[in-house]
Amino acid sequence: MRSGRSTVRRSRERASYDPEVINEILDRHRICHVGLVEEGLPVVIPTMYVRVGDELLLHGSHISRLIREGSSGTALCLSIMSVSGLVLARSAFEHSLNYESVVVFGRGRLLGEKEKPAALEKFTEAIVPGRWSELRPPTKAELRSTSVVAVTIDEVSAKIRTGPPDDAQGTDAEDHVWAGELTLRVGLGDLVPAPECVSGLSPTESIVSMSNALREGRAPRY
Amino acid sequence: MRSGRSTVRRSRERASYDPEVINEILDRHRICHVGLVEEGLPVVIPTMYVRVGDELLLHGSHISRLIREGSSGTALCLSIMSVSGLVLARSAFEHSLNYESVVVFGRGRLLGEKEKPAALEKFTEAIVPGRWSELRPPTKAELRSTSVVAVTIDEVSAKIRTGPPDDAQGTDAEDHVWAGELTLRVGLGDLVPAPECVSGLSPTESIVSMSNALREGRAPRY
Repeated sequence: MRSGRSTVRRSRERASYDPEVINEILDRHRICHVGLVEEGLPVVIPTMYVRVGDELLLHGSHISRLIREGSSGTALCLSIMSVSGLVLARSAFEHSLNYESVVVFGRGRLLGEKEKPAALEKFTEAIVPGRWSELRPPTKAELRSTSVVAVTIDEVSAKIRTGPPDDAQGTDAEDHVWAGELTLRVGLGDLVPAPECVSGLSPTESIVSMSNALREGRAPRY
Repeated sequence: MRSGRSTVRRSRERASYDPEVINEILDRHRICHVGLVEEGLPVVIPTMYVRVGDELLLHGSHISRLIREGSSGTALCLSIMSVSGLVLARSAFEHSLNYESVVVFGRGRLLGEKEKPAALEKFTEAIVPGRWSELRPPTKAELRSTSVVAVTIDEVSAKIRTGPPDDAQGTDAEDHVWAGELTLRVGLGDLVPAPECVSGLSPTESIVSMSNALREGRAPRY
């Protein structure tokens, strides 16, 4: 379903409504900015999400605003975006960013106790794939204190910009100023053991894999 | 001024209301997610911003939803966030992300024609410092087609998490599973000349500086 609200109006050639394209972007990212209306005023809260089928899961303390409002059935808007490059044109006007973004409109429902453990596993796996099975299972108290809201994807659109600057057709193209794209990549910084980490331990397999993914540019975008 | 709306309620030890801390975070970032209420429903739009004093500037086509709503004086909420590391605890429950975020509540006003050139210079300089003076000045038509909205920072809070996992005090600390932090950094990918770039040109000084900043981890966070 698509209403005026989820139809991209500016730079329409950058818009996509293809579920495959949208899901790929959603699965490549981890952070969304959740918009909601509280007493008539807009509030935006950044938080982690994971996609499961046609829903985006959010988690948090059961007493947080995000969970309280998110599970009330109120209208939500989730925005996801990352920048992949700086677009350096010959004119200031055509300077831009290469990016991909998704905007989701939906409503949330609180997951029941039975659905929660599988959902929380997905969050841990979204931080580092393979990590869940390396750890002790969550306790009942831990499960109780975390809530998960599943947001339906009622309406959704993506917007993507890639490639060189848009000023190749005009007179600027002949300007003697370098133009092009400077691409960005999220890479690996350091692997810092916790101060109290039992001495002599090596990073687990999941952490080594994630470090390699970051080194090779295969990691999620934050 | 601080109302309930801008008071951090969860993980309060991570909150900051110090203008210096907040401005540093705002100046380190380029992308915000703008929340507004349209016909009673939340809409969140990702876009670039620059801070100038006590205002955040947004720009866009004069016919865009962002500019139209943003300049109407309606209430806005701007959310900024970046992830600097993965926090890998001994338990799934204590897994987390290191991040910094700022949430701003304010209202926008349209900048007049006289204020616009200086504002647009700030956007170009926010993409690549030093770039503006390497380029021809904007034309009247270019200035006309871009609008700038200045959003007052009426209420603001920051939230920051750094450091190792929080499970060092409990019984988990003795678990024989590696725990620590995997830090991320935005780095330089490639410098790709535009296909029609006049041959033989080298990247300008501003672009070389930005490439070095990215290489050395001094670049903005996207």
